[in-house]
Amino acid sequence: MIQGKDIELVGDLTYGQVGGGEGSFIGPVHRIAIAMNRQAHIVAGSFSRNYEKTLKTAEQLGISKDRTYKDFREMAEKEGQRKDKIDFVVITVPNHLHYQTAKAFLENGINVVCDKPLCFTMEEAEDLIRITKEKDLEFMVTYTYTGYPMVREARKLIASGAIGAIRMVIAEYPQDWLADRVELEGNTQAVWRTDPKYAGISCSVGDIGTHVENLVHFITGLEIEKLSAQLETFLKGRPLDDNAYILLKYKTGASGNYWISQVAIGNINGLKVRVFGDKGSIEWEQERPEILKVSKKGGPTKCYIKGGEYLPGAGQSATRLPAGHPEGYFEAFANLYKFYANKLVAKKFHIASDPDEVFPTVVDGARGVKFIHDCVKSSKNNSIWIDATFKL
Amino acid sequence: MIQGKDIELVGDLTYGQVGGGEGSFIGPVHRIAIAMNRQAHIVAGSFSRNYEKTLKTAEQLGISKDRTYKDFREMAEKEGQRKDKIDFVVITVPNHLHYQTAKAFLENGINVVCDKPLCFTMEEAEDLIRITKEKDLEFMVTYTYTGYPMVREARKLIASGAIGAIRMVIAEYPQDWLADRVELEGNTQAVWRTDPKYAGISCSVGDIGTHVENLVHFITGLEIEKLSAQLETFLKGRPLDDNAYILLKYKTGASGNYWISQVAIGNINGLKVRVFGDKGSIEWEQERPEILKVSKKGGPTKCYIKGGEYLPGAGQSATRLPAGHPEGYFEAFANLYKFYANKLVAKKFHIASDPDEVFPTVVDGARGVKFIHDCVKSSKNNSIWIDATFKL
Amino acid sequence: MIQGKDIELVGDLTYGQVGGGEGSFIGPVHRIAIAMNRQAHIVAGSFSRNYEKTLKTAEQLGISKDRTYKDFREMAEKEGQRKDKIDFVVITVPNHLHYQTAKAFLENGINVVCDKPLCFTMEEAEDLIRITKEKDLEFMVTYTYTGYPMVREARKLIASGAIGAIRMVIAEYPQDWLADRVELEGNTQAVWRTDPKYAGISCSVGDIGTHVENLVHFITGLEIEKLSAQLETFLKGRPLDDNAYILLKYKTGASGNYWISQVAIGNINGLKVRVFGDKGSIEWEQERPEILKVSKKGGPTKCYIKGGEYLPGAGQSATRLPAGHPEGYFEAFANLYKFYANKLVAKKFHIASDPDEVFPTVVDGARGVKFIHDCVKSSKNNSIWIDATFKL
Amino acid sequence: MIQGKDIELVGDLTYGQVGGGEGSFIGPVHRIAIAMNRQAHIVAGSFSRNYEKTLKTAEQLGISKDRTYKDFREMAEKEGQRKDKIDFVVITVPNHLHYQTAKAFLENGINVVCDKPLCFTMEEAEDLIRITKEKDLEFMVTYTYTGYPMVREARKLIASGAIGAIRMVIAEYPQDWLADRVELEGNTQAVWRTDPKYAGISCSVGDIGTHVENLVHFITGLEIEKLSAQLETFLKGRPLDDNAYILLKYKTGASGNYWISQVAIGNINGLKVRVFGDKGSIEWEQERPEILKVSKKGGPTKCYIKGGEYLPGAGQSATRLPAGHPEGYFEAFANLYKFYANKLVAKKFHIASDPDEVFPTVVDGARGVKFIHDCVKSSKNNSIWIDATFKL
Repeated sequence: MIQGKDIELVGDLTYGQVGGGEGSFIGPVHRIAIAMNRQAHIVAGSFSRNYEKTLKTAEQLGISKDRTYKDFREMAEKEGQRKDKIDFVVITVPNHLHYQTAKAFLENGINVVCDKPLCFTMEEAEDLIRITKEKDLEFMVTYTYTGYPMVREARKLIASGAIGAIRMVIAEYPQDWLADRVELEGNTQAVWRTDPKYAGISCSVGDIGTHVENLVHFITGLEIEKLSAQLETFLKGRPLDDNAYILLKYKTGASGNYWISQVAIGNINGLKVRVFGDKGSIEWEQERPEILKVSKKGGPTKCYIKGGEYLPGAGQSATRLPAGHPEGYFEAFANLYKFYANKLVAKKFHIASDPDEVFPTVVDGARGVKFIHDCVKSSKNNSIWIDATFKL
Repeated sequence: MIQGKDIELVGDLTYGQVGGGEGSFIGPVHRIAIAMNRQAHIVAGSFSRNYEKTLKTAEQLGISKDRTYKDFREMAEKEGQRKDKIDFVVITVPNHLHYQTAKAFLENGINVVCDKPLCFTMEEAEDLIRITKEKDLEFMVTYTYTGYPMVREARKLIASGAIGAIRMVIAEYPQDWLADRVELEGNTQAVWRTDPKYAGISCSVGDIGTHVENLVHFITGLEIEKLSAQLETFLKGRPLDDNAYILLKYKTGASGNYWISQVAIGNINGLKVRVFGDKGSIEWEQERPEILKVSKKGGPTKCYIKGGEYLPGAGQSATRLPAGHPEGYFEAFANLYKFYANKLVAKKFHIASDPDEVFPTVVDGARGVKFIHDCVKSSKNNSIWIDATFKL
Repeated sequence: MIQGKDIELVGDLTYGQVGGGEGSFIGPVHRIAIAMNRQAHIVAGSFSRNYEKTLKTAEQLGISKDRTYKDFREMAEKEGQRKDKIDFVVITVPNHLHYQTAKAFLENGINVVCDKPLCFTMEEAEDLIRITKEKDLEFMVTYTYTGYPMVREARKLIASGAIGAIRMVIAEYPQDWLADRVELEGNTQAVWRTDPKYAGISCSVGDIGTHVENLVHFITGLEIEKLSAQLETFLKGRPLDDNAYILLKYKTGASGNYWISQVAIGNINGLKVRVFGDKGSIEWEQERPEILKVSKKGGPTKCYIKGGEYLPGAGQSATRLPAGHPEGYFEAFANLYKFYANKLVAKKFHIASDPDEVFPTVVDGARGVKFIHDCVKSSKNNSIWIDATFKL
Repeated sequence: MIQGKDIELVGDLTYGQVGGGEGSFIGPVHRIAIAMNRQAHIVAGSFSRNYEKTLKTAEQLGISKDRTYKDFREMAEKEGQRKDKIDFVVITVPNHLHYQTAKAFLENGINVVCDKPLCFTMEEAEDLIRITKEKDLEFMVTYTYTGYPMVREARKLIASGAIGAIRMVIAEYPQDWLADRVELEGNTQAVWRTDPKYAGISCSVGDIGTHVENLVHFITGLEIEKLSAQLETFLKGRPLDDNAYILLKYKTGASGNYWISQVAIGNINGLKVRVFGDKGSIEWEQERPEILKVSKKGGPTKCYIKGGEYLPGAGQSATRLPAGHPEGYFEAFANLYKFYANKLVAKKFHIASDPDEVFPTVVDGARGVKFIHDCVKSSKNNSIWIDATFKL
């Protein structure tokens, strides 16, 4: 075993959860990620629309009955009135309920963590931003992939000028789990994502394209100026898109090309980002998250690995294990929660946060919502180039 | 060593060359590729605009003085009149001279092999097609990458229905050799490709984008219906494009996304094609040409290698060495010449050609010219979608 | 997001820990891994030889003072007498203390989880096996790498005959963290592993070679008959080996070749196992744990991935996330704890365990100790082949 | 296309060939490799024991009847007496005929190129060395893999001290073409290599193990001091080894581990060499010959590619195409012939040879013969360590 460092963080924050009961995939992922940090423990919840199920989950999680709620409204209000109210709520309900749930907690003075996409419309997004600011709360949107150590190193490398001025961003996110109409065969995740009622106006862009938008923005800081999108539906009868090509022009003059697909057979979760500058380039793949390929003009491609001494170090606080000991999706998730918890603690004690510990906020969530809308809008207009600047 | 087969082919065809004198890169590549097959030997040439240089090259190549010509016109005419005239001419002059050179030989009844791009305008291309047909000649355009064994296996796999109906083609061809303005630093290849006088209306699309178009067509058989292109120039002062994004709609309804770049640092010659069908997919990379990745719905990705027993076999006649003995660019080139020579011989003796031994013809060359024009046209019109069907 | 399954397991087991206080690397890893499963929580401990430090860690972990112990003996005795005694103890002390610590808990009727290597001598190992049996306790040795899903799939594939009768096992475990004498520069992990007092009779074989032995045995079931080992020390002044070559003959007639190194620059934690049978082969690498390469005679190499439908399924209960969502070292660790906890529960309720949920036991620990001794013995005798059968 | 250089070399050397008639695999490979360089052309030959076949091949190759010989003895004598005798002979007969054929040409004052292994015994090898020296001739043994550009770069990097003093060499050469008894199914290559009459005392070590020995020596310059070998035969009834493990101690104190196999399913021609020094390491794989992985202590692994500006440059004269244009086995072969031809020319004109253009000589061939004998000797003696120094 290689020289490590103390990877334990202990805190005494408390949290509650809405959604994430029996049968949920992402609900327990949040709880496990939080458990890994040991900074916060769950004390309240409303896990299902079915109160019996909520009670069952609450019991399993050791939550007292008086903090087990019938619905999110009751929970938001009652928790908001407690002296020992939860430090934050984790919202893991279907997309169409994000807005109202988040809003209820914000209005009751409770910090919010919410899955992406943040909500369905820009009006909703702006509303959430407004209340978050007014109430001086912290709102995290769990764009998981920003939690990987090497994503953070990429961000710092680029910020340091290591690859020069950015010319192009080539990103792709191919999957193949919707290559058939599995939504007709009882796959609930598929039902949920291909039905406009739950998913909103887009499937592939809303579900995974928004991760690309967020990740590129996180790594590069680039702001989109214009875009041209072509959303396609390959499976007959499916009401939403399952494949998309998006061309972009950023404010700096750099250009981008994003390919999003849920019907690309042979790809599982193939998120990949390449950024090319006038001095060098970087490349990162989600399925091999501990490697960052870095090229400089005229030099050989280098494989930077997590924990390497030569890294700028932004990933250090996102690293729990020495190099060569793979960390993955759970750890990326846990990193976001660690940064969020540290922020809450720093705020409480009026101390400065570590600038490397940034996490996606409600503003990033709004940027994502705008991106989805802009893509759909361009695509519906014969893929014309449209203005896609994001302003608050 | 592994069980091989007789890889020698001996013929007695003769050929001549225009261009390819001292300082040429591609000229000698053609001669070496032909030499590998041992089917043809050089007996005539006009290698340079400078006759002294031509004489020197001719002497080195053992060409008799009476078949060493001052210019292509003299060569075309005089060879055309000989009883023992060359079986074919190899044209390796700068792009802007392709048309007139090829035309002169065709008109004198001589088969032509010409580098890509075929010529500058569709009028020229149609003219060359017309004469080729009228004279019943064979015209090969050396789109090298179609000569790789695994490209041919990919073609046959797709034709056999192995991946089902095609949904998407994702192709890219990033390089980085023009990431600086090397054309100002004495790089003659760069001078030649970035100057409209020699290169025509496009640099990146004309030089390498056309390879993507050809390769995709070769592998899939798809015909383009519409396209939307965005050509970019990242280096200030450079008159032609050095980066391009091209979206496509094929006649079958399949869609495509081609990315072309000569300024993508960290990429050398990164031609890569992925084809996704409703049953599976294939992936091929030029820098690892002996591997073809094949995925079927629900199954693991398989690494097919050159010479594998499980292959459909279209690459067999393009294979000189057993599996595990790398063959590369020269061999791909030599394969095209082998198929071309076999075609000439088959024609002479009125025997059938091997259908697996197809090679890119003047028609493919014309398709390439149209593609370049369509890309430039769309790009100049704010990247609108334009009709891009190819008809003769 | 892809279709998932409920990944939460909730239990109410309790555990205690010896070692793992401030500055420990592996101590917190055990706690986090347990936390991920949510089957057990910590209620007792003796974390350091310094009681002040133990108190501090105990407080951070929320352990009551009456279950915070000065040393392992006190803890073993007092816990052994409690009605609500811990269900198991986690031993994360330096190697030289494993034996006496484990023994104390076993003798007090407490199940044990202990880091590898189990102990220093075969007498100790046999002693621990004996007591474990006599007391009918469960003893897990945390050979982490057996917890990876694809390792379990490999095991089942081989057991099913997928690659036929095994011919050869080629395994390697190169690292480079001891490529310099970092033990002289304050690297405590290095001090600890290169000093015979703490590490026993071997550094590279004892620290990582034993992982190879265990992993190969786990995947293949092969029993070693003879071995020939050459242990080397490249760094002057270092008292133990930092590189080793081990050739093996298994009882079935298969042969093996293990290379172990801690001075192989460019390798981080490069554990890799290849098993060749007379029908096919498998290959697994720890740094890319979610992939298993499988080849069958005459066929292409296939990349099996975690979660693939085509897998035999032994890794399913070791899988928390859908394919394409990387799981790593923590999850492998957590899997072992999950299987261990499930075993304790199954035993309590007299129900059968899942045969896919095997974990390394005290017997595997003993096998590892014997391997280390056999390697050292052969190496000291000019690498002669020695009998290396493991019998209890 | 990228900036190239003139890749044509034209010479007027002549050569003859023994063996390499119809049905031969390697015979035509030699001729094609020579043809690629255009430095020499074939004018004489004795291609088969069957004179009719020899005549047919000679005719195809354009060889005049008076230089088409019934057997190698006639050829050696008659060519030796001609004023315009061939500059060199290429010997591509089965292994058991190498010695006498080579000797006949040497004695008649003709330079020799011979396939590996050079011959069967050290007495024969020493005899050939003696005559070569006495007659002041040039003798090349075609250990093909030394012809790859990146192998040459690796050699120069190591010679320059880039990885420091060598600690370990880990090399492997697994294939799977003998995984069944294909020698019983009409595979003539297999018949030839598994029968002691034609192959000598070893199959796997003699056929491919000797490539490993040669390549390691070429790259590192290390001289073997001792070795311990275990040769195995997995296929019942096969008279020679098909798998081998060889441990080595070099004179410098460095150690080595070579694994050789022809029964390792899933491997085609997997020659791979890793060299570890006290400052860094290099890794090269034959199936991906254009890449050299280089690691320095504390730094990221770098992928050096053929043609990279950062290379020491030893591969330049072995490079015909720009980076990114794959060159393979034929080109490696052609490189050896280029260096050999350049040597002959340099010698004729009393000019110095390029020190980067070294090629394997009769002395390297002898070293290979000794290696095979030493491996067999150790293996027959229970794999004891034996002295394996090579002295002339």
